[in-house]
Amino acid sequence: MILDLINKKRLGQELTYQELDSFFNGYLNGEVADYQMSAMLMAICINGMTDDEIFALTKIFIESGDVLDFSHIEGVKVDKHSTGGIGDKTTLIIVPIVAACGGIVIKMSGRGLGYTGGTIDKLESIPGFRTNLSEKEIEKQVKSIGLVVTGQTGDLAPMDKVIYALRDVTATVSSIPLIASSIMSKKIAGGADKILIDIKVGNGALLSNKADAKKLSDLMIKIGDYYHKEVRTVISDMNTPLGYAIGNSLEVLEAIDVLKGYEKNSFLVELCKELAADMISMSFNISNEEALKKVNNVLKDGSAYQKFEEMVSFQKGDLSKLCVSEKTFELKSPKDGIIQKIDALQLGKLSLQLGAGKEKMSDKIDHSVGILLNKQKGEKVKKGEVLATIYYQKKLVDINIDNIYKID
Amino acid sequence: MILDLINKKRLGQELTYQELDSFFNGYLNGEVADYQMSAMLMAICINGMTDDEIFALTKIFIESGDVLDFSHIEGVKVDKHSTGGIGDKTTLIIVPIVAACGGIVIKMSGRGLGYTGGTIDKLESIPGFRTNLSEKEIEKQVKSIGLVVTGQTGDLAPMDKVIYALRDVTATVSSIPLIASSIMSKKIAGGADKILIDIKVGNGALLSNKADAKKLSDLMIKIGDYYHKEVRTVISDMNTPLGYAIGNSLEVLEAIDVLKGYEKNSFLVELCKELAADMISMSFNISNEEALKKVNNVLKDGSAYQKFEEMVSFQKGDLSKLCVSEKTFELKSPKDGIIQKIDALQLGKLSLQLGAGKEKMSDKIDHSVGILLNKQKGEKVKKGEVLATIYYQKKLVDINIDNIYKID
Repeated sequence: MILDLINKKRLGQELTYQELDSFFNGYLNGEVADYQMSAMLMAICINGMTDDEIFALTKIFIESGDVLDFSHIEGVKVDKHSTGGIGDKTTLIIVPIVAACGGIVIKMSGRGLGYTGGTIDKLESIPGFRTNLSEKEIEKQVKSIGLVVTGQTGDLAPMDKVIYALRDVTATVSSIPLIASSIMSKKIAGGADKILIDIKVGNGALLSNKADAKKLSDLMIKIGDYYHKEVRTVISDMNTPLGYAIGNSLEVLEAIDVLKGYEKNSFLVELCKELAADMISMSFNISNEEALKKVNNVLKDGSAYQKFEEMVSFQKGDLSKLCVSEKTFELKSPKDGIIQKIDALQLGKLSLQLGAGKEKMSDKIDHSVGILLNKQKGEKVKKGEVLATIYYQKKLVDINIDNIYKID
Repeated sequence: MILDLINKKRLGQELTYQELDSFFNGYLNGEVADYQMSAMLMAICINGMTDDEIFALTKIFIESGDVLDFSHIEGVKVDKHSTGGIGDKTTLIIVPIVAACGGIVIKMSGRGLGYTGGTIDKLESIPGFRTNLSEKEIEKQVKSIGLVVTGQTGDLAPMDKVIYALRDVTATVSSIPLIASSIMSKKIAGGADKILIDIKVGNGALLSNKADAKKLSDLMIKIGDYYHKEVRTVISDMNTPLGYAIGNSLEVLEAIDVLKGYEKNSFLVELCKELAADMISMSFNISNEEALKKVNNVLKDGSAYQKFEEMVSFQKGDLSKLCVSEKTFELKSPKDGIIQKIDALQLGKLSLQLGAGKEKMSDKIDHSVGILLNKQKGEKVKKGEVLATIYYQKKLVDINIDNIYKID
């Protein structure tokens, strides 16, 4: 029976809900071995899945754990997810903006493995900041100030977690049907009414081409339809790091800058405004144009930053104690020219080596290290001018500037 | 690095010899996990392999173990392999024919898992028959009588054994490149000069369609070319069991009948003559027509059967003690008509249930049980006439005649 199901998928045939259910739950029960699941995952990766299979798998993931219910909190609960990238601190910026506009955001974020920390790691660089709120605490905070960013409450889609760990070590991560059902099952189990997905595309992201991003977008919207939840998606570039800062404390500082209205980094600011406007448009059923006006207002009048401060104080963080390493090293331009490329993937790897991210769950993150870019893609530099400052702790790693920058 | 290699194959790209070598040897060393190898095998199954990859994998399999050298034995050593099927006792018949014609055959056979026993299991139904000859004993016997059929000597392609066990439980058995490199690596490591492969096609075989069999054939001949070994193939039907007997002792008895010149079973006899003629043609560089004349002669003058007796006596077997179960049950035709179909796969499953084959390596084979067909496909039967006799030991299993026979 197990072999028949793997065989079916190997031949590119469709599996029924019952077949997927018995195979995937069989894996949790120990009836299906790791090596059998990985053969199935590879067959899915190469041969794909039909919409019905994807709906079925999403359902199986959701039903493997808790499904949260925030319906007793008044208003539209809007959630946001990013498929992840280098320097992505958008959550820290968008959530306060949306709340300042009157939206309600209960955002459960992950730590995750990767080149830099997840949102929760970033927030934990604020000493004291609590990320393990109970459902009661979440409810109390949202009713008071309209926003919360915390670690996952309840056991959401635990099967996805187990399957993801296997995908991670079997080169079966970049399957669009598997990415779609993995993300959507967690978002739907998380209890949000409406969901915005920021799909990153580029060499620093899971997906490297726009056609795949479009497929993923279509699929996520279809899954949303199936569950009667409005889903919107934004496809954004991840060839170049997002903003100037990479690393946990450094990214919190940059988020604060943006919330205070500093418009130095146009692409990061533009993207955050676009995403926030989408969430507000969904929350209040208004046009994106109208929503964007609200966004600009709360950035200008300081209320977005105020929401951020309220959240930090509610969650017991002390912003005055945010710490950035004092050991720094400056990367200088080897020649005159224009910056043609800043490689997101290479900077991600560097950030991991510095200790800003973790390779294994058991690794510890150093919140104080990272990279602060001084120049963006397209800018002119002179030989010897500072391209970036490296914040390190233990010892400085070897850096090959030519791998990161293309200057011509 | 491991993930990069799986990824490459997932995307259908070609792996170099060095890459395949490090991945497959990494598996033996424990650096590559089961679940990673099974993901790779599934990617190979679906995306295929180039000729260069197949040559590389065959080489890696061969070099994982011993390579036998019989070059000090004079003459062309010709070997024969069948991809396996229900009632396949061709080795027992062909090897004595070839030796009676002056050919030299050192045939190392397997037990194997499957619906019926392997050639070694069949020979062991002759009480006393030794199948664990040393290289010295093999040499002595071949120099004396020109033929030997024994279990595998030396550690031939041990990596293939390990990989095959994983393929067996991950639905990755039916990959043509993997089948080709698995079989050819063992045959080449076995030290034969020329090799004949009998590729079975049908519902009782590994391959179910002729196009796949043709692909496998082309591939095996190419691998032979690469190693400067002449390889010939014959593609033969395995929808209907081969001959009348299924089961170990029963098949030995049928082989003896054929060697004694009883031509009751035309298809089995035809196939054995064709295969033997191919081996003789390769051994002496003569035409198949000329070879076939020699085959007919040794069957007619009794020298083929005499070779069989010589082999049994050299290997200490006592044919007079061959034992067939006395408990029998007759399958009778439920109606008048012509036999349209005798299902090889269903009879294989029945034979396994009776105890003639084994599902797990730890199972024990009962040499005395099996099935003796009374009628072949295309023959007329009357209601109540005996279709087959079941030889059983412990207890008779449930038999659904309609699953096995189609009579109209």
